Amino acid sequence: MSFDILQDKILALRNPTVVGLDPRPDYIPKHILDRHTAEKGETLEAAADAFCEFNRGLIDALCDIVPAVKPQSAFYELLGPAGVAALKETLDYARAKGLYVIGDLKRGDIGSTAEAYAEAYLGGVRIGGSELVPFGFDAVTVNAYLGSDGVRPFLETCKRTDKALFVLVKTSNPSSAQLQDLDVGGRKLYAVMGDLMAELSKRTAGRHGYTRIGAVVGATYPEELRLLRGRLRTTFFLVPGYGAQGGGASDVAGAFESGGRGAIVNSSRAIICAWQKTGNDGRDYAEAARAEALRMRGDLRSAVDIG
Amino acid sequence: MSFDILQDKILALRNPTVVGLDPRPDYIPKHILDRHTAEKGETLEAAADAFCEFNRGLIDALCDIVPAVKPQSAFYELLGPAGVAALKETLDYARAKGLYVIGDLKRGDIGSTAEAYAEAYLGGVRIGGSELVPFGFDAVTVNAYLGSDGVRPFLETCKRTDKALFVLVKTSNPSSAQLQDLDVGGRKLYAVMGDLMAELSKRTAGRHGYTRIGAVVGATYPEELRLLRGRLRTTFFLVPGYGAQGGGASDVAGAFESGGRGAIVNSSRAIICAWQKTGNDGRDYAEAARAEALRMRGDLRSAVDIG
Repeated sequence: MSFDILQDKILALRNPTVVGLDPRPDYIPKHILDRHTAEKGETLEAAADAFCEFNRGLIDALCDIVPAVKPQSAFYELLGPAGVAALKETLDYARAKGLYVIGDLKRGDIGSTAEAYAEAYLGGVRIGGSELVPFGFDAVTVNAYLGSDGVRPFLETCKRTDKALFVLVKTSNPSSAQLQDLDVGGRKLYAVMGDLMAELSKRTAGRHGYTRIGAVVGATYPEELRLLRGRLRTTFFLVPGYGAQGGGASDVAGAFESGGRGAIVNSSRAIICAWQKTGNDGRDYAEAARAEALRMRGDLRSAVDIG
Repeated sequence: MSFDILQDKILALRNPTVVGLDPRPDYIPKHILDRHTAEKGETLEAAADAFCEFNRGLIDALCDIVPAVKPQSAFYELLGPAGVAALKETLDYARAKGLYVIGDLKRGDIGSTAEAYAEAYLGGVRIGGSELVPFGFDAVTVNAYLGSDGVRPFLETCKRTDKALFVLVKTSNPSSAQLQDLDVGGRKLYAVMGDLMAELSKRTAGRHGYTRIGAVVGATYPEELRLLRGRLRTTFFLVPGYGAQGGGASDVAGAFESGGRGAIVNSSRAIICAWQKTGNDGRDYAEAARAEALRMRGDLRSAVDIG
């Protein structure tokens, strides 16, 4: 099962880190961007090519020490269709290097539309007699404000293709409380969301005990994280908010079960932009990313009893 | 202001209809799909070309009687990067024909990620010294489960580029009640969402009195629709659920203010797949779509005092 594959990779590397591949034109070292704009002009295509080169360098530098990467689709969509092609190319390269790839899409819709999103990113589409795979992520993030109608089509695709989801439960941002912390009959809305997803995915657990619907729970709310961990025993957690957003290793420790199981922690900017702090010109971006990923691994190992 | 442009178009045509351009391979007449697969094989690119041709025919047949179209991104993403290119081509063609184009994306994220989505679909991106427009919709739909942090970046882009948003408030699907109807201190969650967005967008109203944040409110819950209309006096409504999902003209009537202002009603399948009910082979798909759009216009005019 998909989360078994992820959990096994995490335990094998003793590293519950997922690296956010969230490129922006200003995150790319100048020599890379310049080479591509020299070739294709100041175009979306040139920037997309630069994203691909930047990501390949990061993936090469990280694939033996981290189990997973998580491209944030927004940054690719910002380059239009060429950017979406770069997302697909990045996904394929990362998977070829043995990484588990989570598409951070936060899609959410109903009925045949949710089916289309699910098949686009986790399944396939039939054109005439051919079954084609538009993307092929290992897992994606989903926004379930529309209720279980919006999640069930994703879950059905996941069962068929052996993939998985992470549904937004308690997000890491300051205003997440406005809706997610509202009191509904003595429970917080995010707890209701968590329970709903656990119920929806029951009987889909794999060898490690986690069902096909994981949860996004921010590192910036460590108390809520700990409470949810205790409540959702069969839910795998994707934890953003470490590093740039302010969460530390002690904040994320509560996301884990014994043996460092049941969670993966995201870091994006701190790793992919580490080169901006070395005082060099960015030709060392891959080495700088690796050094920061190793530092983070050490930090997580100090707080989480893993493997 | 963006919603003034939309409202003016609606009043000029006496038609508060938005046509959902939601193509799927099985919605495309065989002669179109066959021509493109003959040329490019059974590929995502061939299907994307077929989507473009199908949409151009629909747009040509509808642009003098409907004010707006709403491509649902999921169906284009299902064809991978080629599909996203077809989305952009459809958008450009529709705008060139004078239509207001709503991107049904239901994106939602925070901080710099929300900014990236906003700039991707409603703004632009700087590559070197060039400001490029990846898409350029008139408005997009947004999922605000993450709270106002997730909406503010879209609103800021809208102010700069004179665009608008529709935030999901009460959706049309059966399970929308699971979360959206939860009681939070005597109010329903969807009402809290509606109020939050009205507050966030205050002082952005245009000539017709509507702010830059509209609301998605389903036709399938006519009582809630009427209550929200009374409560959110400065909010423009996008109303899905008419036709295929079961809502009729009397159900959507409550979405409108006097003079047929303040709302637009979506229909997708009933219009774009009207050809499947004519008993012909699909060569009449554009005429069939126009006939159904005229029928819907008459139906809406019978229930809504417009213009």
